[in-house]
Amino acid sequence: MLKGFHYPLTPRGKSTLNPPPPWYYSSDFLSIEFWSDPAAVAAILPPGLDLDPEANGHGNALFYDWQFTGANEEYLDPARYQYREFFLLIDALLEGKPVAYCPYIFVDNDAAIARGWTQGYPKRLGQVFQTRYYAATGKAGPALASGAKFAGSLTSAGHRLAHALVTLKEPLTDPAELKQRPVVNLLHTPRLSQANRKPAVHELVENVPHDVKVEQAWIGDGLLTLPVADGEEMSDLAPVRCGRGIRASMAYIVDDLKTLRDLNK
Amino acid sequence: MLKGFHYPLTPRGKSTLNPPPPWYYSSDFLSIEFWSDPAAVAAILPPGLDLDPEANGHGNALFYDWQFTGANEEYLDPARYQYREFFLLIDALLEGKPVAYCPYIFVDNDAAIARGWTQGYPKRLGQVFQTRYYAATGKAGPALASGAKFAGSLTSAGHRLAHALVTLKEPLTDPAELKQRPVVNLLHTPRLSQANRKPAVHELVENVPHDVKVEQAWIGDGLLTLPVADGEEMSDLAPVRCGRGIRASMAYIVDDLKTLRDLNK
Amino acid sequence: MLKGFHYPLTPRGKSTLNPPPPWYYSSDFLSIEFWSDPAAVAAILPPGLDLDPEANGHGNALFYDWQFTGANEEYLDPARYQYREFFLLIDALLEGKPVAYCPYIFVDNDAAIARGWTQGYPKRLGQVFQTRYYAATGKAGPALASGAKFAGSLTSAGHRLAHALVTLKEPLTDPAELKQRPVVNLLHTPRLSQANRKPAVHELVENVPHDVKVEQAWIGDGLLTLPVADGEEMSDLAPVRCGRGIRASMAYIVDDLKTLRDLNK
Amino acid sequence: MLKGFHYPLTPRGKSTLNPPPPWYYSSDFLSIEFWSDPAAVAAILPPGLDLDPEANGHGNALFYDWQFTGANEEYLDPARYQYREFFLLIDALLEGKPVAYCPYIFVDNDAAIARGWTQGYPKRLGQVFQTRYYAATGKAGPALASGAKFAGSLTSAGHRLAHALVTLKEPLTDPAELKQRPVVNLLHTPRLSQANRKPAVHELVENVPHDVKVEQAWIGDGLLTLPVADGEEMSDLAPVRCGRGIRASMAYIVDDLKTLRDLNK
Repeated sequence: MLKGFHYPLTPRGKSTLNPPPPWYYSSDFLSIEFWSDPAAVAAILPPGLDLDPEANGHGNALFYDWQFTGANEEYLDPARYQYREFFLLIDALLEGKPVAYCPYIFVDNDAAIARGWTQGYPKRLGQVFQTRYYAATGKAGPALASGAKFAGSLTSAGHRLAHALVTLKEPLTDPAELKQRPVVNLLHTPRLSQANRKPAVHELVENVPHDVKVEQAWIGDGLLTLPVADGEEMSDLAPVRCGRGIRASMAYIVDDLKTLRDLNK
Repeated sequence: MLKGFHYPLTPRGKSTLNPPPPWYYSSDFLSIEFWSDPAAVAAILPPGLDLDPEANGHGNALFYDWQFTGANEEYLDPARYQYREFFLLIDALLEGKPVAYCPYIFVDNDAAIARGWTQGYPKRLGQVFQTRYYAATGKAGPALASGAKFAGSLTSAGHRLAHALVTLKEPLTDPAELKQRPVVNLLHTPRLSQANRKPAVHELVENVPHDVKVEQAWIGDGLLTLPVADGEEMSDLAPVRCGRGIRASMAYIVDDLKTLRDLNK
Repeated sequence: MLKGFHYPLTPRGKSTLNPPPPWYYSSDFLSIEFWSDPAAVAAILPPGLDLDPEANGHGNALFYDWQFTGANEEYLDPARYQYREFFLLIDALLEGKPVAYCPYIFVDNDAAIARGWTQGYPKRLGQVFQTRYYAATGKAGPALASGAKFAGSLTSAGHRLAHALVTLKEPLTDPAELKQRPVVNLLHTPRLSQANRKPAVHELVENVPHDVKVEQAWIGDGLLTLPVADGEEMSDLAPVRCGRGIRASMAYIVDDLKTLRDLNK
Repeated sequence: MLKGFHYPLTPRGKSTLNPPPPWYYSSDFLSIEFWSDPAAVAAILPPGLDLDPEANGHGNALFYDWQFTGANEEYLDPARYQYREFFLLIDALLEGKPVAYCPYIFVDNDAAIARGWTQGYPKRLGQVFQTRYYAATGKAGPALASGAKFAGSLTSAGHRLAHALVTLKEPLTDPAELKQRPVVNLLHTPRLSQANRKPAVHELVENVPHDVKVEQAWIGDGLLTLPVADGEEMSDLAPVRCGRGIRASMAYIVDDLKTLRDLNK
């Protein structure tokens, strides 16, 4: 019997891109609130999701510096399992219920691409960086303090596609500020067969991470730019204004996915 | 309507990892013939494929420097669509018919990963290099001539996983030397849902490239090593002996895939 | 005795970034002629070089896909010694004599950075790509023929810094079209010592490559853009108009450098 | 006047690889103590440094995740100035005085190469990773606690060159454990000129960082391997035994370098 969750499937399951779930994650992250043109948001929603008229184009941009592990101390192979991520979440409605949808996401690691595609995250490769906090602060390492600045950037296929700045104001004390809408993605596996080009998988799915922990959360002002680039459409969602910025550490577990609707039917 | 063949699906289909087929390819390649321990070959074959007892563990290792395009001059965006590839093809039988199976393959590009997974190629990211031929030859650029040497190497997740050397003897004049068994892959899309972990797709598929052109083919001796590395199994197929080596240019078109058997049933 | 030309110096000289000269090179290249604002050219010339008033801001942008070797078959380690390069050469005068100066240059390899800094080329890391010609032409691989298109791009520190297109018209038959002005660079090694911040080396030097061979040269139209990017100045030289484009293969040998003037004196 | 500390020198000094010192650094690091064969240590010391007979081949391997800045908030451009580093420091004597010498060092960034070469650090490009500590601990993010494990790895030119593991035991309370010998390097700038191949710079220099801060230091056991790889010599220093391991955060400032001896004289 071949073993492995993702490609490749092999006799002992060591070469596979990812061990079977549960998947464990820790990270530092930046979150920047923004509002896009609602028409641009409406244009990118998949079948089954509707524009949230009250959201007025609201979304969040997120930069994550991740560490991943399965059950076998994969975090001790950081060359293979550490990665950086940028993505957008935009507000939408699913049968009237508030959800968030991920139209664009970029990572710098193949195992992360594979896990993402299995959860409906439409990942591409990108070079993602965010300013780090170190216990030894100084001119090169901002403190967790009012006025401290943290920046993030994304490049993909040779183009700068996003840049962000978070300026801290105060520790985040209201947990409601961290509450997110459930993430509903488009799980999509195309078919190459000329006889049958109907996607093999075309579903709305809900991400159900659990055991979410957040530490060292600070809140302040966020600033996001999504520059125009040849061959790219993400700039259609360029902010018309920005809101709060957050900088924190977090951890969670992923071991499930809920299919909400089969769009092939 | 969202557009795009692979993720992400967007209003204008520009951000997608790949345009819809047909997909056009040109490349330079090295091919190295080798024989593995037949028990190692048998251990990695998927359900539905059998060891070819007459092949005696026979396979080929291939290094490709690719250029890709769809219908819209994508070859003019080489930062996005040029890539390098290493893979193994091992001899097998499908219901008694000689075929080749790809157990391991590595590329340095996300669009290539997406196209590969759609064809059953179990691609991971790797750093792949091969010695190039230039019209302006010299000490740094080997001629297409007897005794000329071309090397290839693969690194993935920080480990050197393959190294090869092809030493040219003579122009390849017998087209039979280039004939390949049809490639039969395992098309596999796992499911994360706890309620249903049965793969969404689990099929034997046949690749049916067409309009194959080969130019500047030279034949000689091949040498391949597949070093042992932590967390990797490809070295199980390490050659017990090597055979011919080929260096050539080629082009083909991919626009279809044939499902041979649904392994979920 | 420690061995090695560049860092690190080691007992056997194998770990060094580069073997001692002579250094042998082969490549494919694109060359695009352009004219910048002469004031921008004047602003970037080092002491000892003057604006060439007749050149009217004339320069060339070049994309190279290189293969390098020393005396020990280094071309058989392409992961270490193959690299890609982009640079500008701008017309200048040295004591009234026409020369070309390199203000900006980018490569994707550390050995190439080391060789460059030893020749006065102010190299930074970048991601450089150019459309390739393959003997097996097709939709993905342009022929060497009238109307064929070849593109090049440069990204550094996450920003797209250059893009070019060469459209072929005809084989280049007049060798005068390939003649270049001698390249005069600023050889510069700064000092960190607070007691003495005068550069350790600050010289005008002339590059004296020899045994230059050019093959498969085609000429046509060139197009170059140098986009504005945060933290970068190369766009000051953005073309006001462009001229001919060339696509060819070439080889040469580097084993010497001439000091023209010690600017420290 | 052209501006910039390192290449390139430009009208406004923005394109330069590095702003002028002072240079500010923050980082997380792993340190692993080891003992090499003293003959291998003796073989790699430059002129002017002697084997420390009492050290018995003692050295330290270090993995750093750095953030750098100059005076202009360069830490807000992490794509350009954040980097990772691996290096060895081996014990030696300078005229009888205990010092440490850096024979091998690898970073993943060009600005860091430039700063290193200016301080006598013989940097090459490498892919360096270390397990991270996050405030949000969990299975993917080890706590700062007894038994917690942190790993590091180095790959360069496609070969795995180092791997390390630090297992924490207890907070480091004795500052003497962190005391390092002064680092004395070989500052070396070769010359390409056939008329004069004597290095332009060939000096013993002492690094004099200041305002060193260390936070969150834990001590435990260290394990280091330096595997054999084609074309590399670092494995000559492979540990015969390993000692303590440390994991901490640190910050310091670099703005000076002391020349101890001109080896050209």
